[in-house]
Amino acid sequence: MDFEKLNGLVPAVIQDDATNEVLMVGFMNAEALETTRRTGYATFFSRTRGTLWTKGETSGNRLAVARMLVDCDQDTVLVRVRCLGDGNVCHTGQRTCFFEELS
Amino acid sequence: MDFEKLNGLVPAVIQDDATNEVLMVGFMNAEALETTRRTGYATFFSRTRGTLWTKGETSGNRLAVARMLVDCDQDTVLVRVRCLGDGNVCHTGQRTCFFEELS
Repeated sequence: MDFEKLNGLVPAVIQDDATNEVLMVGFMNAEALETTRRTGYATFFSRTRGTLWTKGETSGNRLAVARMLVDCDQDTVLVRVRCLGDGNVCHTGQRTCFFEELS
Repeated sequence: MDFEKLNGLVPAVIQDDATNEVLMVGFMNAEALETTRRTGYATFFSRTRGTLWTKGETSGNRLAVARMLVDCDQDTVLVRVRCLGDGNVCHTGQRTCFFEELS
């Protein structure tokens, strides 16, 4: 993976492996990517807090990795997941973070 | 849209509106987003060249916007598209840039 283009980070697109919905986009540094692969749960680097966070660590709505793919120039990762807990990924209680139409 | 978190850019996830495949991820600045909305064709900001580029401007494989959605914290855009030309989005000739499994 090429972490250099974005100061040590790559965008991570989270897609529901069952429905193909795009659920959220986060950022991973090398450690977050390694943690995601090792544990099987999507883990990100928080740009605002400067720390790793595993999605759902408090809510229980973890994202279990089904498959991971990298893009052709290796600067983005696509994580296909199975949603645990109540299945709502967004902190607003929606299934996906992308619920607002850009009109 | 919040362009501040990423030095004037937001990630733009490109998803096939018919198949729900994630095809590529690019970056948009405010001008690229405005151009995308005005023309109806996905247009990005090239971080390496420092210029706008409309996907398919030379290959003909343009991405016609079907719907655009923003995420809950307004720092990422999801662009649902119809693929024009031969329908291959990746410069390697694949349908999607995400063809390589991360093993």
